[in-house]
Amino acid sequence: MKKVLIDCDPGIDDALALALAAGSPSLGVVGVTTVGGNVDLALTTANALALREFLEFGDVPVTAGSAGALLRETVRAAGVHGATGLGDVVLPVATRGPAEGHAVDFIVETLRAAPGEITLVAVGPLTNIALAVRREPRVVEWARDLVIMGGSYTRGNHNPAAEFNMLADPEAAAIVFEAGWTVTMMGLDVTLTAVVTSDVLERMRPLGRLSGLLVPAARFYGVVTAEGGPAIHDACAVAYVLDPSLFTCVPAVVDVETAGRFTRGMTVTDFELGDRRPNALVGTSLDVKRFWDLVLEAYEGLAVRLG
Amino acid sequence: MKKVLIDCDPGIDDALALALAAGSPSLGVVGVTTVGGNVDLALTTANALALREFLEFGDVPVTAGSAGALLRETVRAAGVHGATGLGDVVLPVATRGPAEGHAVDFIVETLRAAPGEITLVAVGPLTNIALAVRREPRVVEWARDLVIMGGSYTRGNHNPAAEFNMLADPEAAAIVFEAGWTVTMMGLDVTLTAVVTSDVLERMRPLGRLSGLLVPAARFYGVVTAEGGPAIHDACAVAYVLDPSLFTCVPAVVDVETAGRFTRGMTVTDFELGDRRPNALVGTSLDVKRFWDLVLEAYEGLAVRLG
Amino acid sequence: MKKVLIDCDPGIDDALALALAAGSPSLGVVGVTTVGGNVDLALTTANALALREFLEFGDVPVTAGSAGALLRETVRAAGVHGATGLGDVVLPVATRGPAEGHAVDFIVETLRAAPGEITLVAVGPLTNIALAVRREPRVVEWARDLVIMGGSYTRGNHNPAAEFNMLADPEAAAIVFEAGWTVTMMGLDVTLTAVVTSDVLERMRPLGRLSGLLVPAARFYGVVTAEGGPAIHDACAVAYVLDPSLFTCVPAVVDVETAGRFTRGMTVTDFELGDRRPNALVGTSLDVKRFWDLVLEAYEGLAVRLG
Amino acid sequence: MKKVLIDCDPGIDDALALALAAGSPSLGVVGVTTVGGNVDLALTTANALALREFLEFGDVPVTAGSAGALLRETVRAAGVHGATGLGDVVLPVATRGPAEGHAVDFIVETLRAAPGEITLVAVGPLTNIALAVRREPRVVEWARDLVIMGGSYTRGNHNPAAEFNMLADPEAAAIVFEAGWTVTMMGLDVTLTAVVTSDVLERMRPLGRLSGLLVPAARFYGVVTAEGGPAIHDACAVAYVLDPSLFTCVPAVVDVETAGRFTRGMTVTDFELGDRRPNALVGTSLDVKRFWDLVLEAYEGLAVRLG
Repeated sequence: MKKVLIDCDPGIDDALALALAAGSPSLGVVGVTTVGGNVDLALTTANALALREFLEFGDVPVTAGSAGALLRETVRAAGVHGATGLGDVVLPVATRGPAEGHAVDFIVETLRAAPGEITLVAVGPLTNIALAVRREPRVVEWARDLVIMGGSYTRGNHNPAAEFNMLADPEAAAIVFEAGWTVTMMGLDVTLTAVVTSDVLERMRPLGRLSGLLVPAARFYGVVTAEGGPAIHDACAVAYVLDPSLFTCVPAVVDVETAGRFTRGMTVTDFELGDRRPNALVGTSLDVKRFWDLVLEAYEGLAVRLG
Repeated sequence: MKKVLIDCDPGIDDALALALAAGSPSLGVVGVTTVGGNVDLALTTANALALREFLEFGDVPVTAGSAGALLRETVRAAGVHGATGLGDVVLPVATRGPAEGHAVDFIVETLRAAPGEITLVAVGPLTNIALAVRREPRVVEWARDLVIMGGSYTRGNHNPAAEFNMLADPEAAAIVFEAGWTVTMMGLDVTLTAVVTSDVLERMRPLGRLSGLLVPAARFYGVVTAEGGPAIHDACAVAYVLDPSLFTCVPAVVDVETAGRFTRGMTVTDFELGDRRPNALVGTSLDVKRFWDLVLEAYEGLAVRLG
Repeated sequence: MKKVLIDCDPGIDDALALALAAGSPSLGVVGVTTVGGNVDLALTTANALALREFLEFGDVPVTAGSAGALLRETVRAAGVHGATGLGDVVLPVATRGPAEGHAVDFIVETLRAAPGEITLVAVGPLTNIALAVRREPRVVEWARDLVIMGGSYTRGNHNPAAEFNMLADPEAAAIVFEAGWTVTMMGLDVTLTAVVTSDVLERMRPLGRLSGLLVPAARFYGVVTAEGGPAIHDACAVAYVLDPSLFTCVPAVVDVETAGRFTRGMTVTDFELGDRRPNALVGTSLDVKRFWDLVLEAYEGLAVRLG
Repeated sequence: MKKVLIDCDPGIDDALALALAAGSPSLGVVGVTTVGGNVDLALTTANALALREFLEFGDVPVTAGSAGALLRETVRAAGVHGATGLGDVVLPVATRGPAEGHAVDFIVETLRAAPGEITLVAVGPLTNIALAVRREPRVVEWARDLVIMGGSYTRGNHNPAAEFNMLADPEAAAIVFEAGWTVTMMGLDVTLTAVVTSDVLERMRPLGRLSGLLVPAARFYGVVTAEGGPAIHDACAVAYVLDPSLFTCVPAVVDVETAGRFTRGMTVTDFELGDRRPNALVGTSLDVKRFWDLVLEAYEGLAVRLG
């Protein structure tokens, strides 16, 4: 059982990542925290709550966190994720609210209680994680690992230089990458290959109630890549925890640009380490076939459970 | 009774500011929080604890906070404050330790419990205050006022552009100035006029046990101004709370530079508001005579109490 | 006879500076070059040509130079200098045009022809001077001196951080200050004390034809200082060449900020040299009475000549 | 006959580019200008002079230009090009010196004399071109085209973000890209595919005297790519003039980062124009086979001539 704490901003691909987690028996989700990102915090929290019930996550606490970036004006991606953050998907409104307290405290206390056990999976802007690091620097030791969806070593998506999650809070990203741990970075370079092809979509259709989330989510999702369908970025981070052998990962020094005029939020990735210690393990390729086998098998198992 | 929460990094002038608070019956100190600044957090906390007992602050909780800046490498001023942070002063080691928990949480909870009642007085780098704002944005409404020692609208001290507290955490300062409240800024422009002249020093000498803190502190303090003695910057912020009429304050828009090559941490102060709302009330002059009357009267009262 | 080459952007105070030069027999003006600045290059050049004839500069060549900044969008100050650049002053249109060629080449060739003899006086944005330095680095050795009006070590005028000439081309200013010579900088700190008081204005009135330039120029000039009248910034640079003893000048290291968000064009001035070589001699005070004696005597002499 | 003016910093691949030009009868080289870049200006100029004679360029004038960047400290690449800039190649010392005057003036005057006729080919830092643009903005109209080797829309070579020529003078590059013309940019994305494979090297060996330049140049050249041999970047820019159909080129808006901490000199390339006018035509792929056919045919023809 791998324990994970998922910090997210659902967000369509966040939903697909949470579904992957829900359908993976080998994963133990100890908590979900939310951050303003794709859409506002109120919506990402409401979506996380609705998903908790829809996906039958049971008692996993959902705790709301930071509404905006550490230092910057808020950047949103409602164009990609729709006004509610979940595209055309309409889930039943959650019957239970979020946990008391703040995501940053939840992260600190949860990691403190089980040092070395819990992997942080962060698939939104890194505001909560950065605040946790500054609030309690020992989270860096306590976390088993930190796996993020974010960044790129070639090109961005929100603009030519920056990926959305990093651009949404460059200072937070800089804090996280400089904190002393090794960040496992699943950036656009790999996530853009995790494309929902028409074949994949066909395999999602017969999944009963769950298909009511998966299919419209995948279809609405506005970013069509050269390969022909939407890429489910965030699920890559969860998939990495489930099976790291799906990915080639290369050690690197990643610096997050905070000062540039055209390059804020860029994850400047240097694979030539010289005698420097790497601060990141950067995904450079994905075994797409095995990725979809893993994901769809999880979805299928979950569908059986959900009916 | 004016309630204040003092966030500080003692620091010689922090000590003189705490002594002013301790000697002012009209002030109720509800807590002291510490931050890494003039010297490391371990020292600023130890100094705050020692001062609590030496100045007979009673049960006022001392809570440790942030060790370093949000984003930057740490900057220290041990050259000015000595290796311990208190120059040649040697206080008895504290018999009691700091409160449980973190300064940021203490600030949030204390303000939450008494909205509109407590004035924040911040005389070190603004890391704790910025984290409190990001952790709980409503502190901006809950605080009665925020009075800081820091910045300048003419020239810096740590370098030509920046004052030490602002340079030590420019991003935190930017967060604090952009948070929506009106920051009362006691910068070098006024604090450099709060000079311990030889006359002032003579009035500190006969103050019994207290003079054992005041006199060596004032003499060690390495920054001699054109006016001829050291300036006790931080005491100005406390003095402002005690008697705002000591100062001329002018509304302004203050932007904190975080991007410059030579100007990081500069408080760029624009008094020409046009139709902009000011985010700061900036001290521009100090009635030096009345300031020293206030401060020395407080010290004298405290000396009687301390014996 | 002190030879000077004046690079300017007339501009009202440029006109008053040229009048000072014209009325100073000990000064030999070997050329006037123009740059876009207060107003567009076409206007600064037309004004320089009109002034050459009105002030009876004889055969002094006027050569047009750079229209805009090296790297930045153009900044203008027509609000201060009026649409034509000369406020309400209407001079006869020039009968002769500018010299062939470009100001940068004129500067290079003129200095090359008389190494060590000619002082550059630059009272507009430093675009031409920077291009000359990059075009022919030896101008730094060939120039006898470089005296500029620009910058400040306390506060700006165009915004809180930057003086207009420096803001109008920060990269050019950076090139000039880093070129290896010692820049004599007459910044706002001194020039704002060169105020046209009502007494001064009275002494300008009886100066015949010349008063037709001086009086409306001084009256239009839109920047009224705390001292009560307009300051004739550019004339300070010429006055310095005529009599350096009017000014206190202090060696300093001046860095021009090009990267800041709020501080571009700021001349960050460090008087604490440590073991660094100063790159500037910065004016810190002006003997205002003697300044006006010098200027008005020059104007009176010129008035006699002009009739 | 296509007329070109080549601005370069030889440099090994500059030498190979000049050899391509020398061997292409359809190209008329009207001048060669030099700039400090791969190595110091004195060496790039000496190398250009030696190459003029070795390659029998006849009377083509070689004019020296800018020694260093507009604003930055000098960056060199002697590690890649060897101490002399030509690796192990030893050419006979030139018997004739450079032309009088400065490269910037040569560029301006040459373009002025034949508006619309001459294509600028710039394969070093863009200092000379930027200064020409600022010295005489009309060069933008007079140039038939500007083709550069430089930049990248994916990753740099000198560091992860920036290609060497752009990093060596980011401000110059920014000036050139913002000047109003359409820059044809042959960046690393295409030039790294122009690899000297062992097959190519075999075809260079039998080329008589010329092989004495080509073979050691190609072998010394220290950057080995994943494809297995050195890439001759600069020759791509000349090849584009000879036959644009070798390349796929895509319109883009290119912004040069000058402010970043980790990204200075990056050519931030946005292919999504929206309603913006593109300022660049960016090479995205090269027909490698036809490229080498073109280049080797030119070398073979030249070899016959040189003996």
